[in-house]
Amino acid sequence: MSLPDDTRYLKGGPVAKRIMAEVARDAAKATAEGFPPKLVSITVGDVEAVGVYVRNQRAKAEQAGIGFEERNFPADLTAAELEAAIHGMNADPRVTGIIIQRPVPRHIPIKAIQAAVHPLKDVEGMHPASIGNIVYNELDLAPCTAAASVELLKETGLDLKGLEVVVVGHSEIVGKPIAFLLMSEGATVTVCHHMTRSVAAHARRADALFVAVGKPRLIKADMVKPGAAVIDIGINTETGPDGKERIVGDVDTDSVKEVASWITPVPGGVGPITVSILLRNTMVALARQRALYQATYGTAE
Amino acid sequence: MSLPDDTRYLKGGPVAKRIMAEVARDAAKATAEGFPPKLVSITVGDVEAVGVYVRNQRAKAEQAGIGFEERNFPADLTAAELEAAIHGMNADPRVTGIIIQRPVPRHIPIKAIQAAVHPLKDVEGMHPASIGNIVYNELDLAPCTAAASVELLKETGLDLKGLEVVVVGHSEIVGKPIAFLLMSEGATVTVCHHMTRSVAAHARRADALFVAVGKPRLIKADMVKPGAAVIDIGINTETGPDGKERIVGDVDTDSVKEVASWITPVPGGVGPITVSILLRNTMVALARQRALYQATYGTAE
Repeated sequence: MSLPDDTRYLKGGPVAKRIMAEVARDAAKATAEGFPPKLVSITVGDVEAVGVYVRNQRAKAEQAGIGFEERNFPADLTAAELEAAIHGMNADPRVTGIIIQRPVPRHIPIKAIQAAVHPLKDVEGMHPASIGNIVYNELDLAPCTAAASVELLKETGLDLKGLEVVVVGHSEIVGKPIAFLLMSEGATVTVCHHMTRSVAAHARRADALFVAVGKPRLIKADMVKPGAAVIDIGINTETGPDGKERIVGDVDTDSVKEVASWITPVPGGVGPITVSILLRNTMVALARQRALYQATYGTAE
Repeated sequence: MSLPDDTRYLKGGPVAKRIMAEVARDAAKATAEGFPPKLVSITVGDVEAVGVYVRNQRAKAEQAGIGFEERNFPADLTAAELEAAIHGMNADPRVTGIIIQRPVPRHIPIKAIQAAVHPLKDVEGMHPASIGNIVYNELDLAPCTAAASVELLKETGLDLKGLEVVVVGHSEIVGKPIAFLLMSEGATVTVCHHMTRSVAAHARRADALFVAVGKPRLIKADMVKPGAAVIDIGINTETGPDGKERIVGDVDTDSVKEVASWITPVPGGVGPITVSILLRNTMVALARQRALYQATYGTAE
């Protein structure tokens, strides 16, 4: 695959590497100061499906100097028992952040469980209060995929103030948070979705186009403004001409790269950044916990 | 002022009346069941400036059968003392909702104080968790002005699914919540603000235009799509040709009404609805508190 001279791939690897270095520096400092960061990963029942994700999180966390503890609960655990376990972790000063690995068994109400994680330990950025804080322009702890996508846009060097941004997909943890993050940075943001009359009409006027709908190759070249930045958050599996399964995004990369000035590859774009954002969130959570500790137990002014 | 035959004023009065009737019915039922709703209004220091608002809230609350208690604290109260008082109200089962009247003295950090109100008693809908819940499509408890504005749009009978909505103004408690509320209803929403390159270009393609920026007559007829619904949330004071002060909105009503199919008068549009939304939020809060009470102390299934 080659790109015209004026088009650049927005690759996640270098961004992830830069964030990882910052996290490792912060984690070493916090540990030396007596506050070693630690993540607890919660799985319920059979964890085969999420095994590869959890192993990757563990490897990256340990690489950055962040502790990583796996807690697997039996599949017949009740929601009340899981909530009680989470409350214990909320109160445990050794636990910096809590990750609820999905999926969980059907009898566990995932939203209620996520809301049981104390906002100060919500490293996934998915608690309603975390989402609300973004709306209130407190941008440093956001849902990982949304934050990773915004990091890639920033890599272009485009001035976000007044930038015309179109987000295709209005999910609570990707599309909408991308919209608020960029509104807070000064962009003019439109959110499209399956009920939008003409996604193409909006997409074509976007300086930056984010796509997160889970539809392979939904966005074609004629839906993209020449010179735009295209951030593809979709992860879809399709069978290639060689009969093998492969991962493709929501954007028809081959045609769109002839039009766009920047485009994320899939895989290799947003994906590699998300775990580094999870770890950065962990350090943000630790800093907030330390500030509360200081305010509660520190010397009075 | 007269309107062309096909243009209608979206007046707040009848909407407020309908909501008040619903609230009164719910409040009477809850009281009969042993859960009388009660609001506590907090003022700090000199309350002259907010006196008229508080008196109006009290009158409307009592009219709907909701208790209303005014708590005035001295101007030299510390933030910690105010937080402690709020924590007491959070724990008091007789208090359904807490209103922090603004302004508060400068040494009181208003955001921290608002966040100290338990989300279950946040009838103003301004706690980060309340804002986050809207993002998560739980729409029944929203900031009062935002919810009032959306009520007026619904009065048009327009189908919100796929409706092209433009919100001018990206404040945390008006512009942004309007955007999420309407995204959740299926609209395609764009949020513009002072950094937007051309507000006019966006405004002109809007089926529904919300304006909340505090600039008198910002929106002229040439910025409005023929047949649009225009919701004017601005409240500005200007001196009229007779030398008297008068209230005008952010929309140049006289010219825009020649183009729009619906337009809110200012005053008399969004304003009259906000207190009824506050009272409706009180009943939503009470229902959530009762559900928690039931889940905690009720008979097990």
